[in-house]
Amino acid sequence: MSYERDNIRRMTAYQWGEQPDSREVLKLNTNENPFPPSPAVAIALTAFGVDQLRRYPAPTANDLRQKLAELHEMEVDNIVITHGGDEGLRLALTTFVEPGRCFGMLEPSYSLYSVLAEIQGAKIFSAPLGDSWDIPRDFAHQLNEAAVNLACIVNPHAPSGTLLDADRISRLANDFQGVLLVDEAYVDFVDPALRYDLVRLINAFDNLLILRTFSKGYSLAGLRLGYLIGAAELIEPIINKTRDSYNVDQISQTLGEAAIGDRAYAEETWRQVRAARRLLREELIKMGFQVGISQTNFLLAEVPLDFSASAEEIYRALKAEDILVRFFATPLLEDKLRISVGTKAQNTRLCKALARIIGKLT
Amino acid sequence: MSYERDNIRRMTAYQWGEQPDSREVLKLNTNENPFPPSPAVAIALTAFGVDQLRRYPAPTANDLRQKLAELHEMEVDNIVITHGGDEGLRLALTTFVEPGRCFGMLEPSYSLYSVLAEIQGAKIFSAPLGDSWDIPRDFAHQLNEAAVNLACIVNPHAPSGTLLDADRISRLANDFQGVLLVDEAYVDFVDPALRYDLVRLINAFDNLLILRTFSKGYSLAGLRLGYLIGAAELIEPIINKTRDSYNVDQISQTLGEAAIGDRAYAEETWRQVRAARRLLREELIKMGFQVGISQTNFLLAEVPLDFSASAEEIYRALKAEDILVRFFATPLLEDKLRISVGTKAQNTRLCKALARIIGKLT
Repeated sequence: MSYERDNIRRMTAYQWGEQPDSREVLKLNTNENPFPPSPAVAIALTAFGVDQLRRYPAPTANDLRQKLAELHEMEVDNIVITHGGDEGLRLALTTFVEPGRCFGMLEPSYSLYSVLAEIQGAKIFSAPLGDSWDIPRDFAHQLNEAAVNLACIVNPHAPSGTLLDADRISRLANDFQGVLLVDEAYVDFVDPALRYDLVRLINAFDNLLILRTFSKGYSLAGLRLGYLIGAAELIEPIINKTRDSYNVDQISQTLGEAAIGDRAYAEETWRQVRAARRLLREELIKMGFQVGISQTNFLLAEVPLDFSASAEEIYRALKAEDILVRFFATPLLEDKLRISVGTKAQNTRLCKALARIIGKLT
Repeated sequence: MSYERDNIRRMTAYQWGEQPDSREVLKLNTNENPFPPSPAVAIALTAFGVDQLRRYPAPTANDLRQKLAELHEMEVDNIVITHGGDEGLRLALTTFVEPGRCFGMLEPSYSLYSVLAEIQGAKIFSAPLGDSWDIPRDFAHQLNEAAVNLACIVNPHAPSGTLLDADRISRLANDFQGVLLVDEAYVDFVDPALRYDLVRLINAFDNLLILRTFSKGYSLAGLRLGYLIGAAELIEPIINKTRDSYNVDQISQTLGEAAIGDRAYAEETWRQVRAARRLLREELIKMGFQVGISQTNFLLAEVPLDFSASAEEIYRALKAEDILVRFFATPLLEDKLRISVGTKAQNTRLCKALARIIGKLT
């Protein structure tokens, strides 16, 4: 006898990227920062007294909230700390989407969105992205027609790396009648010259949530730490009702504060990733891949038709050489590889392997 | 405009126990272990290389699952690691209870159960416990009549501390048509002479889930680490579908393994808590409180009618002296205090304060 809910039995599980145990593997498949966390994080970990773990953690992580409020020039009430960005996404669904009602998204995007919507028992309204990853002009209208409670977009976009400007998102938040969650998992890698800043819109819109994570920008994927920024009225039910009461452990709170305290270190890693991204893109283009401009820490490389090797074949050949990149066997993506930007040395190793593989296969 | 789901807006939030910042406060209100975690946990924390945090954690925490499987003489497939016991409860609801369908519980018990059921949009079937905390003889029948998908009972019971024997639970699992989750948050403090062991029932019942936590027995409340044990068919959808993909951070996985590796240390804290529990109960009874036998790390002390001070007044007077105990203003509990068992020295401080307060108020 099966006890699962019908929708759980029917749904397809989220497929996480491969996480090999071996340190020898060059992991360019799950968009981790190639640099280690700040030395300040290491110091905070060493200084952490294990006896503190006897007690429950600070339920609302207020010290960390305070630090983030100062960073973003917002109030504490505008922020809720989450157990990774993924918990922020789940909590938005739990709080704002009635089972049987509609969740909105674009396709392709972060494949977890639809999985979380299915778990919640929500209907999914998914609009296809255009050729150049443009969102439909009338997207807000489409969402309203479908009576969408919550829509998630990822900006900069995954897996293309393209950035939607703040004005476009502002119009979307204005026209859409539900809650708009903008997943800024990769925002730290946006070129500062673009002056992209969505947080300043929070005070203008009561339906805008911004999701941030420590996973990429602060090299803390192993810690599971993220946060949502939004109007106090959006944050309040998440803080007080829908999140687990002690959703962030005490070590994560402490290390998160240390990471924010040494933001200059993280910013330097972002600068280096951007520089490596530019060089890697040039190399890939030289090899014949089609690669758009990315504002993230990954590149989406299209394998042209005149290559004799397909994206999937290249993915497999790289894996045989202990190099992992991400291949999605889904519409718009099956001719592409998503490659996380590594250090210069890692990217060189990748490019040498790619040149060999393409040479061998073509 | 409010964007919350109706049931979220209407529901009453879970009230977590007070978590004061001050180390001066004697915290006997949230059932933390009075002893620090094992020195092996401290060593594992010191040895943890912060660079590991750059990468995502092991998605299914298999090393820790393996250690727990060995401990319980079960298979890895029978275990899912959760972000604290609370996540285990939430995931059971998410996986097995259809919104609009029924969740079963006893009253009083852990007040989070009904909160989680409300978040899930489930109906709640709640059976009242008898005078001596007996569950209704026909509880399984009642649950079946109400078409309950999932029922949670806490054993040993909170907040009374009483233990239901395994035979009674076996009959319940046998007669109940839904999933039975037995929350064993306090099981480590059960007198070993009672030979209580529910895990051996897992292979006999396809509808039994057992919840364990590192919070109390292993003094790791600050870490958020727990697990569910059950038939592989019950565990599988939780592992692969309903839990967040990286639901347990890498540090917690590592420290959890260290704690299990030095179980002898934890067992010694359980022995000391049991000894302190017996002495504290005797002291409280001497003062005139009515206190049943507890198999947990707390006591439920009833304030007799001939005391001029009520339970709530005593709670407030203790708080004024920087001693926190738990008072619930709910049926069956409003004349009682739930007191976590501290070290001998802590319990002596509590008893002195109580004697003074009762003397002063009577």
